[in-house]
Amino acid sequence: MPGKAKRQAPNAFYAQSGGVTAVINATACGVIETARKHNNRIGKVLAGRNGIIGALSEELIDTSRESTAAIAGLRSTPGGAFGSCRYKLKSLAENEREYRRLVEVFRAHDIGYFFYNGGGDSQDTAYKVSQLSRSMGYPITCVGIPKTVDNDLPFTDCCPGFGSVAKYVAVSTREAALDVASMCETSTKVFILEVMGRHAGWIAAASCLAQEQPGDAPHVILLPEVDFDKARFLVKVQATVERVGYCVVVVSEGAHYADGTFVADAGSKDAFGHTQLGGVAPTLANMVKDELGYKFHWAVADYLQRAARHLASATDVKQAYALGKEAVELALAGHNAVMPTIVRTNDSPYRWKMGSVSLSRVANVERKMPKSYISKDGFGITAKGKRYLAPLIRGEDYPGYKNGMPQYVRLKNELVKKQLEPFSL
Amino acid sequence: MPGKAKRQAPNAFYAQSGGVTAVINATACGVIETARKHNNRIGKVLAGRNGIIGALSEELIDTSRESTAAIAGLRSTPGGAFGSCRYKLKSLAENEREYRRLVEVFRAHDIGYFFYNGGGDSQDTAYKVSQLSRSMGYPITCVGIPKTVDNDLPFTDCCPGFGSVAKYVAVSTREAALDVASMCETSTKVFILEVMGRHAGWIAAASCLAQEQPGDAPHVILLPEVDFDKARFLVKVQATVERVGYCVVVVSEGAHYADGTFVADAGSKDAFGHTQLGGVAPTLANMVKDELGYKFHWAVADYLQRAARHLASATDVKQAYALGKEAVELALAGHNAVMPTIVRTNDSPYRWKMGSVSLSRVANVERKMPKSYISKDGFGITAKGKRYLAPLIRGEDYPGYKNGMPQYVRLKNELVKKQLEPFSL
Repeated sequence: MPGKAKRQAPNAFYAQSGGVTAVINATACGVIETARKHNNRIGKVLAGRNGIIGALSEELIDTSRESTAAIAGLRSTPGGAFGSCRYKLKSLAENEREYRRLVEVFRAHDIGYFFYNGGGDSQDTAYKVSQLSRSMGYPITCVGIPKTVDNDLPFTDCCPGFGSVAKYVAVSTREAALDVASMCETSTKVFILEVMGRHAGWIAAASCLAQEQPGDAPHVILLPEVDFDKARFLVKVQATVERVGYCVVVVSEGAHYADGTFVADAGSKDAFGHTQLGGVAPTLANMVKDELGYKFHWAVADYLQRAARHLASATDVKQAYALGKEAVELALAGHNAVMPTIVRTNDSPYRWKMGSVSLSRVANVERKMPKSYISKDGFGITAKGKRYLAPLIRGEDYPGYKNGMPQYVRLKNELVKKQLEPFSL
Repeated sequence: MPGKAKRQAPNAFYAQSGGVTAVINATACGVIETARKHNNRIGKVLAGRNGIIGALSEELIDTSRESTAAIAGLRSTPGGAFGSCRYKLKSLAENEREYRRLVEVFRAHDIGYFFYNGGGDSQDTAYKVSQLSRSMGYPITCVGIPKTVDNDLPFTDCCPGFGSVAKYVAVSTREAALDVASMCETSTKVFILEVMGRHAGWIAAASCLAQEQPGDAPHVILLPEVDFDKARFLVKVQATVERVGYCVVVVSEGAHYADGTFVADAGSKDAFGHTQLGGVAPTLANMVKDELGYKFHWAVADYLQRAARHLASATDVKQAYALGKEAVELALAGHNAVMPTIVRTNDSPYRWKMGSVSLSRVANVERKMPKSYISKDGFGITAKGKRYLAPLIRGEDYPGYKNGMPQYVRLKNELVKKQLEPFSL
């Protein structure tokens, strides 16, 4: 009886973790569509409401109640459709209680697969769950799925979410530069764009893809990998304005001085003793104004950059989906405690295939930008770096529009019935 | 002889003025393509390098040296292809010298048409030129062409540039709201987006087009038309977070207190006595943090919003082009000292046609947002306001892409030979 067979297939748990991206839902789409194709082996996909917190609090979204069209719509919807969270499970030694609760919830809902979609911390959690569940006599197949705009996971050519932010930043830099170029004769001479990246400069680096010819913006890229030197920065800005007529700066939020102080924190108290809120872009703008006297404008892209599904990289969307699909296929093939990866086989034309790596190797390893990607003066990206970055922004993948607005899907997000006592977080 | 006939046709002068937009080059495209079609009556289109300054300094770009493809490419290239300027000609009484110089340059280069593409000040200049040239015995046909992201010109349904910024702001608000909604359980609860609009709130108002259902972002819109009241603002934010789980605020840079102080200027000195740079978004974020304790994020779109050709409104692009075309046709039909306008004939489906208005009526009149467009509590836009705004963002008009990047045209911008003595600005 098909009914019986379906009831016997274990359910899968899927959760989104940490900062969301323009394509994390494309991964969810890949997971759910693939699981649905294998409904003889996977029952329902239950999604954690607000990430892993949903598992701890037994708030499990029943994705089987969503239509085929709604799930397909996830592919072009930014944000985290089931909610995400910034909640790092403590170490096993410190809080085994949380891990035991996870296993309890999985047992209560017949969950045989654990898909955790996030960055380094999440891969660590997925690894720990895989270990503990085994020791607790409730084996569950755990697969981590990479996601992070920061592009800082090891063993994968890139992380889903990064390619789309990279495209947004490169396009915005090119567009804003055309604006500044038009205005520089009598008005704005320096434009500063602040982008994400607290520890690694991948996102700021991607702005280099706006360059086609000598003199093209961005003229200065400030990375966390290079200690900020105010005097050298100002010399570079001035020289650029004198040569090109204007100067476009792209800065990582994590840009810092040699002593580790963030540029954004310098001179950080206002008259009331509050920490100044400006961020690094207005701080740099102030420097330029005070020391060089140029008129400036600055922008802080913040969430706009990582939510900009309207400008997603088709390559990124494809990879995000493929990793979700591969995660399910790895699980079905009996692989446990692994993470699917993107393996680059050629730069141009870009070719990639799926790979995988053991979660034990991924956990808590941060991938920095190689020194060979940063130009000698520290203000630009080398040809080698551009070769790496260029394919990741290729292709457009527009969402559908209605009345001039992108149509993003809204799920019903109905919870399954709770079966356990409440759990205090 | 066609050669002789062509030499006899007077040239046209075209200049871009003030802040540029995503579609001001579409207007240039409309002007130049239409003039080329009438090459028996218009010689060359000479564009002012950096706006009106190009006319004063006799730096005239010979657009006849640009290929058909390059001129067509202007239609999808943001910024001002010939350079713009913030340079307001003084009144005739204060500085007749500048107006006389313009006429001198026009005479030297056989310019019979003056097309000035800008906001209120530019329309005023165009009007004065038309008056003076007549009295100086050098009649020239002067046509102003509307442009301004601020949407504050009278007599036209809207201003080219506004529709595309409106679309950018509405889409960005929707996307960022999905991000915040995903994160609000454990992280960001309040997101603040700062947009342009120093005197009028049209741009911030357009964010209302992100709303589809009750509870949708933006939850609070702060306009220069409504005096900022900190206590009421905080109550509204708190109520929204409690009801929806998060709160998205869109604020005009020109938001101000009842006494006229900009919100951005409040508490404006840092420990060194510098004016605090934050802008209004970080100032509001600070308030929310201090008084309500919510975690926040904020973004400042700045030039990104008005340069975002990648997300232009097709309606806006069409209108920008049509106004350029109409300007030339008005001139050829013998109309002088006029500005073509957009006349709305129906809301939904949106229908519009060309109109025109005398420059004498346009000059220095600023169109404010009607009170009937602002909701009773001052934090939102009424159904009537939405009916006005909705059609302006309709339709997508994507630029061509290569290697993942929009392909924007670069003109040669070759100057014609100077014939006069230098002129000091």
